[in-house]
Amino acid sequence: MKCAGNIEVRDVEESSINIDPIQAGGRLTPEAMKAIIAYGDGYSVCDNCRKPFRLDYIRTPPIDVFHRDLARFLNLDVARVVPGARRGFQAVAGTYVGKGDPVLVTALSHYTEILAIEGCGGIPREIPRSRDNLITPDATAEKIEEVIRETGKTPPLLFLDHVDYAYGNLHPVAEITKVAHGYDIPVLLNGAYTVGIMPVDGREIGADFVVGSGHKSMAAPAPSGVLAVRQERAGEVFRTTSARTDVTGRTFGIKEVEMMGCTLMGVTLLGMMASFPAVRERVNHWDRELSNAQRVVDALRRIEGTVIQSQYPRAHTLTRVDTTRSFDLVAEKHKKKGFFFSSSLKAKGIVGIIPGATKVWKFNTYGLTDAQAGYVAEAFLEIARENGLSVS
Amino acid sequence: MKCAGNIEVRDVEESSINIDPIQAGGRLTPEAMKAIIAYGDGYSVCDNCRKPFRLDYIRTPPIDVFHRDLARFLNLDVARVVPGARRGFQAVAGTYVGKGDPVLVTALSHYTEILAIEGCGGIPREIPRSRDNLITPDATAEKIEEVIRETGKTPPLLFLDHVDYAYGNLHPVAEITKVAHGYDIPVLLNGAYTVGIMPVDGREIGADFVVGSGHKSMAAPAPSGVLAVRQERAGEVFRTTSARTDVTGRTFGIKEVEMMGCTLMGVTLLGMMASFPAVRERVNHWDRELSNAQRVVDALRRIEGTVIQSQYPRAHTLTRVDTTRSFDLVAEKHKKKGFFFSSSLKAKGIVGIIPGATKVWKFNTYGLTDAQAGYVAEAFLEIARENGLSVS
Repeated sequence: MKCAGNIEVRDVEESSINIDPIQAGGRLTPEAMKAIIAYGDGYSVCDNCRKPFRLDYIRTPPIDVFHRDLARFLNLDVARVVPGARRGFQAVAGTYVGKGDPVLVTALSHYTEILAIEGCGGIPREIPRSRDNLITPDATAEKIEEVIRETGKTPPLLFLDHVDYAYGNLHPVAEITKVAHGYDIPVLLNGAYTVGIMPVDGREIGADFVVGSGHKSMAAPAPSGVLAVRQERAGEVFRTTSARTDVTGRTFGIKEVEMMGCTLMGVTLLGMMASFPAVRERVNHWDRELSNAQRVVDALRRIEGTVIQSQYPRAHTLTRVDTTRSFDLVAEKHKKKGFFFSSSLKAKGIVGIIPGATKVWKFNTYGLTDAQAGYVAEAFLEIARENGLSVS
Repeated sequence: MKCAGNIEVRDVEESSINIDPIQAGGRLTPEAMKAIIAYGDGYSVCDNCRKPFRLDYIRTPPIDVFHRDLARFLNLDVARVVPGARRGFQAVAGTYVGKGDPVLVTALSHYTEILAIEGCGGIPREIPRSRDNLITPDATAEKIEEVIRETGKTPPLLFLDHVDYAYGNLHPVAEITKVAHGYDIPVLLNGAYTVGIMPVDGREIGADFVVGSGHKSMAAPAPSGVLAVRQERAGEVFRTTSARTDVTGRTFGIKEVEMMGCTLMGVTLLGMMASFPAVRERVNHWDRELSNAQRVVDALRRIEGTVIQSQYPRAHTLTRVDTTRSFDLVAEKHKKKGFFFSSSLKAKGIVGIIPGATKVWKFNTYGLTDAQAGYVAEAFLEIARENGLSVS
């Protein structure tokens, strides 16, 4: 069925249990769904934009309050909404990174951090991961020393993924930040996989900047996100324009250079705002989410040859599995080849695994009910049994 | 009535005739409204993202086709969607503007162009406007000569507003572009007020880059927009990452640096796509829109003391009016002061003029039916008569 022109209705979330690695935290709440219908039109939030004409000053709808709530939620001082976490990275990189500067990332950094650095002419330098795929304070200190020794420059910034995209591992970010601060290196915490689904306390972590993703983890439409900063950094990252034009002598008030003025003028922002009360509440139930993730992971571990590549026990709902010696062995002989796996899952109403993947793949149980998690766990076991894999 | 939490339902477009200067072209089509309901969830368009994992390669929904359609629509070669026109400016500035470079804008350039230049460390240099608020080819040539003489540098870029935000004037962009090209200066056409509401032929204009705004003029949710370029520029603006990390040796495939990878992952893009067939069609009815604008403008001119500051006759539906010697004289003595005007309009079901404004203000008749345009014209005359202004 088409919803418009040649565009099929999307009903994945209504018809299936979706364990896609990146989609779980971005499903809209019912409140967001109502808000996007009311605020779908382009500049819908601008009806009551008055002097000084900036998004975060708008009172109706209460965008001003939302900005303050966001900062408080992350326990930092000033927050702005941005068109996706990547645009938050870009704003911070644009403020601190100059041509040729070495910029710290990690071996598990998301590619958008690398692009933000590359866009400013900086050189990404990776902190290696440990054998168990964690970034450690020691490795951080060693890397900083190495970079300073080699380049003679102290990196102007460290991009640190709170939970990484590859393994869903939770890194010791407070300790790493402490090390970086010992060298006066400010830290941007990439909370794309944490802000909005688990508690994140920017001040406790010591982060100078916390970036979150609306569409990844805050039940908001894309592209949306948040950039929250400490007061002492706000004047830098959120500096206002100092341009004065040569002929007309125009100046541009309090528009912020890195924000490019206003950022989310309609449906994306209102979706974030409408979901926010539920999001603020749901982070308190992270334990339940972890227990569901653990339940599915433990089922997978019972399938002979299956290896959980992520941290164990799980500290996040995004998990990376290696089934090269289980489901992939089946795929070799199955008439559907690797597609047998996603196809078997689909027959059971489960979607979100890349079709054809039977070696290394990821899934995310975030937002499943306990019953759904149990069902997914059982489904993996059934597919294993049906295909002759032994289950302990 | 609240639609969610503390957020009032927005029903401006349902309950009123909205002549807001920036909102007219961004009202969703019914098709877009259906699409945003189906694709509201965060990463909704990523269900079928396969290698090489980039937004514009996704086939279901048909995002790949849409990208080609967009380029064709603007008669250029390669198009990308961006989170608002300003992000298109930023991408092009990021590609061509270096620290200290003089960059051409006009005396009527939108502030977001200035911010894009400032973000790269460039210096905006304005081409003056003529007495009738137009940018001319002669003024362009003179300014280029002046800048080269003063700085010893040829500007790397010219930002040119097709129709400006201040007067809604249509500038001789093809002729100006010809002048710029005579100095080998590439031209970015800012079509925020034109792409999606009137025909725009990038090749005929000679533009190197055309930027449009989804939420301003393409009946799409915010933030959304398009950046279309000539083939010979595509490899520059849409260059792919050349980063290779030092420890893991990771590379990042065909992700484009200035796009920060993928751009519009859900509702914004699908809104644009769903509206596109209607948008492509509606630009052919620009004459009807102009005749409605003209009708309202002509009514205003009949009110003694009222001056149309925009081009006359109108070549765009956005118009700037000076009523200092008409409605503002009423305001001086009215018990509601300047608010009498917006309040009188509101009583007649017309909204979109900044409350309190009675000196210089703007309105946009885009998208009104003929009957609505007639009604708005008559409403201005009635308010004038009711308040003792003479109407010719």
